[in-house]
Amino acid sequence: MAVYTDVAADELAEFLRQYDIGELLSYKGIAEGVENSNFLLHTTKGSFFLTLYEKRVARGDLPFFLGLMAHLAGHGIVCPQPVRMTNGEILSSLAGRPAAIIDFLEGVWPRKPNATHCAAIGQALARLHLAGGDFPMHRANALSVKGWRPLFAEAAPRADGVQAGLASFLAAELDQLEESWPTQLPGGVIHADLFPDNALFLGDQLSGLIDFYFACNDLLAYDVAICLNAWCFEADHSFNVTKARAFLNAYGRERALSEAEQEALPLLARGAAIRFLLTRLVDWLNVPPGALVKPKDPLEYVRKLRFHQSVASVRDYGLSASGAMA
Amino acid sequence: MAVYTDVAADELAEFLRQYDIGELLSYKGIAEGVENSNFLLHTTKGSFFLTLYEKRVARGDLPFFLGLMAHLAGHGIVCPQPVRMTNGEILSSLAGRPAAIIDFLEGVWPRKPNATHCAAIGQALARLHLAGGDFPMHRANALSVKGWRPLFAEAAPRADGVQAGLASFLAAELDQLEESWPTQLPGGVIHADLFPDNALFLGDQLSGLIDFYFACNDLLAYDVAICLNAWCFEADHSFNVTKARAFLNAYGRERALSEAEQEALPLLARGAAIRFLLTRLVDWLNVPPGALVKPKDPLEYVRKLRFHQSVASVRDYGLSASGAMA
Repeated sequence: MAVYTDVAADELAEFLRQYDIGELLSYKGIAEGVENSNFLLHTTKGSFFLTLYEKRVARGDLPFFLGLMAHLAGHGIVCPQPVRMTNGEILSSLAGRPAAIIDFLEGVWPRKPNATHCAAIGQALARLHLAGGDFPMHRANALSVKGWRPLFAEAAPRADGVQAGLASFLAAELDQLEESWPTQLPGGVIHADLFPDNALFLGDQLSGLIDFYFACNDLLAYDVAICLNAWCFEADHSFNVTKARAFLNAYGRERALSEAEQEALPLLARGAAIRFLLTRLVDWLNVPPGALVKPKDPLEYVRKLRFHQSVASVRDYGLSASGAMA
Repeated sequence: MAVYTDVAADELAEFLRQYDIGELLSYKGIAEGVENSNFLLHTTKGSFFLTLYEKRVARGDLPFFLGLMAHLAGHGIVCPQPVRMTNGEILSSLAGRPAAIIDFLEGVWPRKPNATHCAAIGQALARLHLAGGDFPMHRANALSVKGWRPLFAEAAPRADGVQAGLASFLAAELDQLEESWPTQLPGGVIHADLFPDNALFLGDQLSGLIDFYFACNDLLAYDVAICLNAWCFEADHSFNVTKARAFLNAYGRERALSEAEQEALPLLARGAAIRFLLTRLVDWLNVPPGALVKPKDPLEYVRKLRFHQSVASVRDYGLSASGAMA
């Protein structure tokens, strides 16, 4: 929630000469995005997004992220298209940082998603999974099951200060997930962070999926589980089965979940919960005193995790086990 | 440098129904402005600025600020025009805060102002002073000479921790300024905070003066002194007489400084320096540990103040004492 790097106007104007996007009219640092510095540009040819990649994003991953966005946009997925420089390249540098220009997409993210939004996300996620099928690059998911133990080790000593008993709760859950995590389900490119603030709408119409900086190769159904957590719980942490049904049905109409994927869904949802729980917990424990940016509450994901532990079968998510929709 | 208040999309869409500015396409929180929450809106009718006034801005002052912007824009000053609601009002409320929509002005603020920029600012400042002549509202300047003693009292006990001897230096200066501060010079509406980041340019052309939230009634030449400090020193704190001459000459062509104003200029510039020195010092001493936002360096203004103490006459600023330009 901050611009980390300011850019001088003359430096930016010089940078923009590499592109064919017109003359600079204005640029404003955007107060969204914690990983990178983002600017909304107005030029004589329209609106664009300028991203400067700060140190939390590995430079070596940028061709994957930007290449994926270009690939998906070319396959009809509503996502920002990186703008090519006149030399054909996507990635440049500005103010000592890797930098790229991408199309600015109009739309607002839903602060209170409804079932229509959830259905649109289900459809778009399935299409994204299909469109990613022939994307030739590969990026391992550092935040999948193997990545959780080190995060837990970092957070464990002080976890009980956040909630009594949290460390042993997480330890037991982690043991189970590591033991039973599926390996044979269909894999591919996943978004891995498709929260409501990464989905733009104009009315009920999805106008863009954004922020592909966690995208990677992993189980497709794990991405479904991440969205189930991100879109189908209410502000009071109750699970909204109407939204889940809308989301899963819309997904299934584009790409049917296999029986094995459906059976694994409650476990994958527990994994998706512990993944965000652990990163939030580490952030929570490492926030500098007096910082203006309030970290996200890790306990929200404790509640979601407990819910999924209580789920008997995929039917509890509104999807019948046979694969036909309830 | 932060958005303090987030706004939900449906709440914003509802708010915008009070205006005739089209349908909402997108809105982004802007990472500029420390006092208020600012959003750049795209609608089907163009780009607009939405400001939510946070608690540091007194609600009672808003009619002055917004009325002044409307008045100046109506008098040919390049500044954002508040957008009226269909009921004719300028000021509304959103997310529990006073809120207003103003025109979005294209332009970029100069990180390294040159003499051409300084001349444009001189001309615009003089025109602003003239155009403000028949603005009917009045707002006292809380940060003029009478406002400095309380700031000093707050900062003094810890001032020497910032620079050895700073407290006694400031005490002596303050005594002198209070004793000799002019009262008979021409007064009127001043911007009072016309720093480079509050002036937008397209190339060398001024496209907008912004941020009128320190505007008030005070000595017009005090506003000139504030700009002299803000625009005519280099990054290494040396005074650039070429820029000062360009600024003062351009000002004088629109509104001639009287002999008394010219004679007072070195003293007014010391006052303008101590005003920003003191507010920055108070901010510096009160920044929470670990805060992401780095306060501005108060010592920059110690150096500017010392420079003005060494000035023998207005000639040192590039302006001849006779009123004719050097």
